[in-house]
Amino acid sequence: MRVEFRLSGSGGQGLLLAGIVLAEAAILDDRNAVQTQSYGPEARGGASKAEVVISDEDIDYPKATDPDYLLALTAESYRTYGALMGAGGGRGLIIVDASVPLSSDIKARTVSVPILATAADKVGKKVVANIVALGVLGGISKAASRESLEAAVLKRVPKGTEELNLSALRAGFELAEAALAMRDARRVDAADPRIAAMDDARKARKGVDDGRYR
Amino acid sequence: MRVEFRLSGSGGQGLLLAGIVLAEAAILDDRNAVQTQSYGPEARGGASKAEVVISDEDIDYPKATDPDYLLALTAESYRTYGALMGAGGGRGLIIVDASVPLSSDIKARTVSVPILATAADKVGKKVVANIVALGVLGGISKAASRESLEAAVLKRVPKGTEELNLSALRAGFELAEAALAMRDARRVDAADPRIAAMDDARKARKGVDDGRYR
Repeated sequence: MRVEFRLSGSGGQGLLLAGIVLAEAAILDDRNAVQTQSYGPEARGGASKAEVVISDEDIDYPKATDPDYLLALTAESYRTYGALMGAGGGRGLIIVDASVPLSSDIKARTVSVPILATAADKVGKKVVANIVALGVLGGISKAASRESLEAAVLKRVPKGTEELNLSALRAGFELAEAALAMRDARRVDAADPRIAAMDDARKARKGVDDGRYR
Repeated sequence: MRVEFRLSGSGGQGLLLAGIVLAEAAILDDRNAVQTQSYGPEARGGASKAEVVISDEDIDYPKATDPDYLLALTAESYRTYGALMGAGGGRGLIIVDASVPLSSDIKARTVSVPILATAADKVGKKVVANIVALGVLGGISKAASRESLEAAVLKRVPKGTEELNLSALRAGFELAEAALAMRDARRVDAADPRIAAMDDARKARKGVDDGRYR
């Protein structure tokens, strides 16, 4: 089972790092992952994107062709990439920052989450919005375990910022829980059948249920 | 014109960062670039790789299928990825660290460069071997200008390490010059026709000759 993520926002938001950490966390869970950063005309003019593909199989094509999860931290990235969601027939979910006004032109399933405000107000540093977002993506998709996300964050963030970034990640987990609990409001699938199937396959392989996410 | 790079070595050598910086430098030169990091069976067991594709055209397929340049910093990565070089009919060049014994089983064009020793002895920090390697790759391929490589390094390295990393990059440029000067010994192409064509196309587009590399 293949799960595709597209992380989009503005250039300075650190989404490349978030994508790297997500991919590395999946590896710690014994999955395969490819992280891609594209630059060029599409990435210029303010919108930045990073992609991650996670799979229990070999990954033949490393880019997200019809993302299962789109993270959009800015209005521009929401417009640009939100409009592409579902075009390939997928049932992808848009996770958009709560500061971005929603558009009725964008038809994909959408959940609005206060990622930037949580980074600024609750964690206390705007720059960790990428790690808050990582926690949200991990918590909603369950494509990587909390333990692996924490370990991958600790591996990649600058020395001296470990506690700050762990707080940010955990704040993201909490936002994910809240989003999942609100599924009535915006039709978030709490138990994505694709992820459940991936989990089942992995557990069958390992022969254990590690109960890693509740 | 499309140029493919594969950077391989061991997990802790920072080749992902080198790939990111190479891609970002190409963008500063108005090219397109995609940086990819794959994890999974192929990346486990010590060998790590990152890939960069640079092109003046759109990049349809973001992975290196037949690399023009393979960087190999360890014996394992040299064996693993060196054996694949030229399999697709390409004339790719292997840039291997001088600490690695060469094998007659690996037939591709090869240049042996003291990257790790230069980082440890001349720059004074083993951890900047990735940036020395970046200078070598940039200097030999000319796929990104020196100015852009320097700017991209400054953007991505941790604060307080700027001078160290610039020294490492410039040490890499010098190694590249030496390797190019030794082309008789190991048949390095100083003026790769693919890169020259890319340069010509770019200059024609811009209508200028910026003389950015001598």
